[in-house]
Parts: sequence; C-alpha cells; structure tokens
Amino acid sequence: MENTTAKPIRCRAAVCKAPGQPLEMEEVEVAPPRAHEVRLKIVCTSLCHTDITFWRMKDFPAMYPCILGHEAVGVVESVGEHVEEVSVGDTVVPVFLPQCGGCADCLSARSNICSAVAHRHGFMPRDGTTRFSLASTGEPVHTFLSVSSFAEFTVVDVANVVGLAAAALPLPPEMACLLSCGVSTGNVTPSLARCWSLRFRSIKPRPTVAQGSKMRGAKRIIGVDLNPDKFEIGKRLGITDFVNPNDTGEKTVRQVIKEMTGGGADHCFECIGSTSVMAEAFESSRAGWGKTIILGTDAGLAPVSISSSTIKWGRSVTGALLGGIKPKDDIPVLAQNYLDKVITDQTHMLCHGWKAGSFRASGACIMFVLFFLMLPAFRQELELDEFITHRMGFDDINSAFDLLDRGKCLRCIIWMDDGAKK
Amino acid sequence: MENTTAKPIRCRAAVCKAPGQPLEMEEVEVAPPRAHEVRLKIVCTSLCHTDITFWRMKDFPAMYPCILGHEAVGVVESVGEHVEEVSVGDTVVPVFLPQCGGCADCLSARSNICSAVAHRHGFMPRDGTTRFSLASTGEPVHTFLSVSSFAEFTVVDVANVVGLAAAALPLPPEMACLLSCGVSTGNVTPSLARCWSLRFRSIKPRPTVAQGSKMRGAKRIIGVDLNPDKFEIGKRLGITDFVNPNDTGEKTVRQVIKEMTGGGADHCFECIGSTSVMAEAFESSRAGWGKTIILGTDAGLAPVSISSSTIKWGRSVTGALLGGIKPKDDIPVLAQNYLDKVITDQTHMLCHGWKAGSFRASGACIMFVLFFLMLPAFRQELELDEFITHRMGFDDINSAFDLLDRGKCLRCIIWMDDGAKK
Repeated sequence: MENTTAKPIRCRAAVCKAPGQPLEMEEVEVAPPRAHEVRLKIVCTSLCHTDITFWRMKDFPAMYPCILGHEAVGVVESVGEHVEEVSVGDTVVPVFLPQCGGCADCLSARSNICSAVAHRHGFMPRDGTTRFSLASTGEPVHTFLSVSSFAEFTVVDVANVVGLAAAALPLPPEMACLLSCGVSTGNVTPSLARCWSLRFRSIKPRPTVAQGSKMRGAKRIIGVDLNPDKFEIGKRLGITDFVNPNDTGEKTVRQVIKEMTGGGADHCFECIGSTSVMAEAFESSRAGWGKTIILGTDAGLAPVSISSSTIKWGRSVTGALLGGIKPKDDIPVLAQNYLDKVITDQTHMLCHGWKAGSFRASGACIMFVLFFLMLPAFRQELELDEFITHRMGFDDINSAFDLLDRGKCLRCIIWMDDGAKK
Repeated sequence: MENTTAKPIRCRAAVCKAPGQPLEMEEVEVAPPRAHEVRLKIVCTSLCHTDITFWRMKDFPAMYPCILGHEAVGVVESVGEHVEEVSVGDTVVPVFLPQCGGCADCLSARSNICSAVAHRHGFMPRDGTTRFSLASTGEPVHTFLSVSSFAEFTVVDVANVVGLAAAALPLPPEMACLLSCGVSTGNVTPSLARCWSLRFRSIKPRPTVAQGSKMRGAKRIIGVDLNPDKFEIGKRLGITDFVNPNDTGEKTVRQVIKEMTGGGADHCFECIGSTSVMAEAFESSRAGWGKTIILGTDAGLAPVSISSSTIKWGRSVTGALLGGIKPKDDIPVLAQNYLDKVITDQTHMLCHGWKAGSFRASGACIMFVLFFLMLPAFRQELELDEFITHRMGFDDINSAFDLLDRGKCLRCIIWMDDGAKK
C-alpha cells in the first residue's frame, strides 16, 4: 500500500449547480483521501435514472452544488490510512451501497444494508465532509451517493469500493461500469439482476435453505410501459407480453394483468419509483403467494398505499437497494459470470427473467410481472452488451441526460479519457 | 353417508338486525344442506373480535339481518349430496377459510387461499343463497363468514369444515372451538399460532426448504398496548417487555422500539386491525431484514401507508388469513399438539413466541415485536387452557360482546346446550 499522492488534484467535473439545470464543466479540486478512503481516476461512468431523479430534486436531500454520478469504474490513484483492501493501480467499481464487512448486517447473509458505514446525503460517510471544492472560488461541492463519478477524479470510502482483481480475466471497463449499479440493481435489467439478486438473497438467507432450494424458471414475463418504443427491445431481452396502460380501454392495468394471468402475477416488480405504479403492481399480484418487489426510487419519498385487506390474502411487499446483493460479495460473481458467459447452476434462480430488460423515460410506467415455474436447471448467459446503446465523451454528458430522460437509450457510457488535469 | 334429515330445522339463533345493536334471540328456520354442504348442531361457539368488527359495520360488506359467529365446534347433523369427507355424527370445526383440496392454491404448499370456493359476503359460497330465514316472517337471514355459529344449527360448505376424527383422543369441545379461528389465526395468541403458522408456511414453501430450515427461537418479545391490564397476563404468556404508547412521553413507539432493540425489531406483528398501528409496526422494523406481518382486520378496509423509501432498506410487509395455515391440514395437527401437550420438533419455528398472547379492546393498540435467535431445538407445549377466561350460556351472548369489547376477557366460550328445538 503506498500513498502516492497526498496532494489535491485539480481536474474537470460536471457540476450540478441547480435542480434540473444542465451540468457545468468546472475545474474542481479533489482533496487527498483520508483514513478508510481511496481516490479514484474515473475510467468511464454511465448515467442511471437515479441521477436524473436527484438532479431534479428541489428539496432535501438535494444539495447544490454537487457532483452527481454513481455508476462507474475507476483505477485507484491513492489510498488513505487503514486501506488494505485495494492498492494503487487496482481497477475498482465504486458503489453507492457500502459493505464494511464487519457489522451485524454485513456478517449476516440476510441483509445487504451495512449498519456501520451510514450514507450521508451530500458528504463522505465517515466524517460528514466533502473532498470536492470549486477551483475558482474554493466553494465546497457536495458528494452524491458516496460516489460522485461525474468527475475525472473522486474520493470514495473503501466500504464503497469493489475490487475486481479476483476476476479471472480483465473485465472490459464498460461492463464493469454496468455492474456498479444498473445491472446489479436492475435499473436497466429488473429481472436480470434485481430479480436474480432478490431471489438469491431471499432463497438463500442461510446456506441450508439455499442448498435445499430448487432451480426455478420464469414462464412468462409481462412488461408494462407507456412507451411502445420499448417493446421491441424488450422482446429481444425476453419479455413475452406487453401491456401499454394507454391501450387498456376502460380496464385498469390490474384488471388486464389478472385476466392475462388467471388471477394475478406471482411476482410483480416496480422499477420506476412511482408510488401509484407500486400500488398497481401490488394489486396485480396473485392471492396466495403474490409478491411485489419495489425497486424504483420515488423522488418525493412518498408513501405507497397498500390495502390492509388485500395483503392478508397471502400477498407480500418488499424492496431492495442494489437488488438485494452484497456489493463486495456479489459484483465479482456477476463479473465472473459475464466473463464466463454462463451463470453457474448455483445462481439459477430465474431464467428468462434475466433477459428481461427495459429502460425508463419521464412519465413511463414500467412494471415486470413474472411467472415462475419449476423447471430443470439449465445454463444461461449473463447478458451485458445489449444494454449499452450509446457512448460519448465527458464533454457531452448533458446529451446523455437528455437521451435517458426521453427514454431513447438504455445505458450511455461516458468516457473520461479526454484528459485528467492534475 | 346418510342424509338423516332433508327437512328444515327450527331453532334459536342470536340475530344481528342492525349495526352495533344487541343481538336478538329469534326462532329461525335452517334449510337442509344442499350439495357440498353440511348442517351442524353447534356444541359451543366463542366470540372473536372480528365478529365485533363486522357487528359494528354500517357499510358493505355488512348485511342485515345476519347471524354472526365463526368460531365454533359442532356435530354433523346431516349432509348434502357429494359430501364424503365427513359423516353424520362427526365432530367438526367450521372455519371461515375454505380448503377445497383440489385447486391450484390448495395443491400448493405456498398458499392457504382456496381459489375454488370463494367466500361471498352474507351468503353460502357456492350458490350465493342463504339457508337461514326468520321463522316468524320468512325473511332471509344472511350468513356470516361462511359459518354463522351464533345459532343452534347452521349450514356450512364442506370446504369450510375440518374433521377432527383423526386426532388420537377426543379434543374437549372448548379447545376445538379455539382452534376454529382464534388460536389458529392468533387473534388470541398472535405468536402462538399466527407467528407459528406464518413461519411454518414461509419456511416451508416446499419440502426441501423445510427440511433444510433450522430450529429458531424468540429471544425477546415486546408487547405494545394501551391497556396496562394486559401486561400481567402477557407476562404469564411469555412477553418479556411491554410498551404503553401512553407512557412514551415525547417519543414515538417506533423510537422506543428502535432504542430497545438497537435499530428495530426483526419481526413486527400487527394484531388489532389499525392501519396506523400497521404503519408504526412497519417503521419499528429493522433495516436489512425486518418483516412486518399484518394479522388484524381493519374495519374500514383502509389502506396502510408504507414508505416506499423505508421498505427498500431490506424490509418487507406481509399478511395472512387464519395465520397462514391450511385449515384441513394444520388444525388437526394443532389439535394433536394440544393433546400431546408437546409441539413436535418439526414445528419448532418459534419458542417463547407461542406463549405470547394478549387480547383486544376497543381503542387498544397491540403489537408484538419478536426477536429470533438461532437456538437449539427444544420442546414446548401448545397452551390453550390459558385463553378461556369466561364461559356462559347462549342466552347471555350479548354479555360476551360487552366483555370482549371492553378488553375484559380473552375468550368467552358460549355453550349452546340450553336446547335445540327441532
């Protein structure tokens, strides 16, 4: 472990100065990493819809100016004290969800919510300060989701860094970037990763349960979206049926889903962060064992309204951050799975589900409704390449916001290689 | 199978004629059972808080006049066509939740919601008519929860009848009566039966998972109630800590629970049917794996408000009817467990939890919060006797309403033996 540079770095960052306003390319100063922190040179980053959600936020926890971005891959430039897990030169994936490895939650297979390194809105998790300031004025710039990847350099807590050194082959940076949040959480691929990891976590709360669990497969996947452009790519990714709420006439989505499925879906995934869609997903779930999984983030942190009567008919509702995975345990596995192009039998909880994917657009309603059948185990590729629809340089980052906001892309990879200015 | 009497029976029934008004003892005519139905001579019945909830209802699904009561034990007086499961003279427990045995839900271990014999408010499930009428005027009298046990005779669908012939010893009628709803659902004993059966169902969605599950025990049980009278009996039943929301000063219940538990409870059970208590239970659950189980029935069928942000931190909410048990499969097991006075190791999902119990009173807030620890398997009695606090004759049934409504009793057994008039 060598601390190569204990000096601030000046570099370019896309700074968000006001809600919903285009990011401004600014020279910022990035302080050296403190204890338990690492400074990363970002290789590439991508835009997640959560960035757009927070970009628009006028109220708490929004803080300006700030550097958004939380999906990226980088190389360790320097490390602070007590950092032993990664070394200078390592390629790592920063993640918004920490994993300290030592708390009750990190030690339990049931939880992926680290209870030792708490996220702090706008600041570094351990000391509540920021490493960013504007070079011109010295004004502090807030951190975002413990990552802030829309900068050539950033400082991240070591609990929020996943090393990929264990992978057998070097993972292409664009693929590593997708694992940072999108694929792992399932924002891009709800059933690829979210469903997978939720099942993974819930089927395997303890090893004995996991060992006894059977391989299962999705028979039918229904995508619900207001944007018909998504249906074609959805089909390629494995969705078998589509429902456009604009085309259901006098029927509600829940009525249509119940008719299609003979009473409701086994699993309903809400992926866009709309509380009304969450409620609709819940009401579309089957009595007896229907499960609704909330994955989207509501911008206003509003409550979802769940019928206290309906839930008693054997239904349940749950939610997850980062798809329920433990980042340091599971992202390397996902990386290896991509490299192997084969998911091991052990992780075969869903099958067609993995191929289901869609993307979000302002006002779009996305919900995935899955049927699971007992199926024999089989092999399935972890598909990543399909999700990269656009690539651009750092200077064009505002175009990426526009594309994603209009539902015109899945993932846009933003390459930083137009120059780090130290 | 002999159909001993194909004639109507005239007998006494406690008829509810208007919301919240004392029941009136009337002579009613009970038509013979039709196909798939049995006519029962009620031996004894008991009052459940759900009777009180519906007794007060002014709006749908309330229907008047009706015969309330759904917790009872009876003897088969006659059977309709196609009834082969029970015979005249069998002692049976009627249950509000049907189990046809042949639908997808009944055939699945994951569900206890029969999808073939649907409950119809106020009527028999299969043909939507009633077997009751007032002897004086011929006016039809509505059925309640497919049971209507506040009558000397009633007609119940065979899907709603559990035979106890398989039990090694005859079960005392009072104990059988408790298994009809209260203990099975856990209205009297949330953690005795509800928690047990919920765990039972959720731990054992498929045999392989059940076989791999470990024996677990509750370390700490926190009861929350506005009525301090309940604390003493709660202690006898195994509750380790009590919280009275009137005594928490400026702190909310969720704050107190989080302080007591170091962040929130593993499992939170809502037992009274208050949506605000449901929300409080949810907010008192631990991040990472906290589970809230809704067991109470809200009189107004109001929605419960669940934070879409809070749930994503690894929390979940579920609910169950009849504690998640399959009545025909599980009530005989509970009966045998009572007779054995020992729960078999296989059903040892909770330990102290079984002993936890409380009762409801108007305006009271009951919530059970349980901690589970991995514990070695041990033996535990299924306690029933503790819950019978009062006994009375059929003529005094309105007193039972008064006692339960004021939180002065756990279960009051109402004996019908003051005369069936055929």
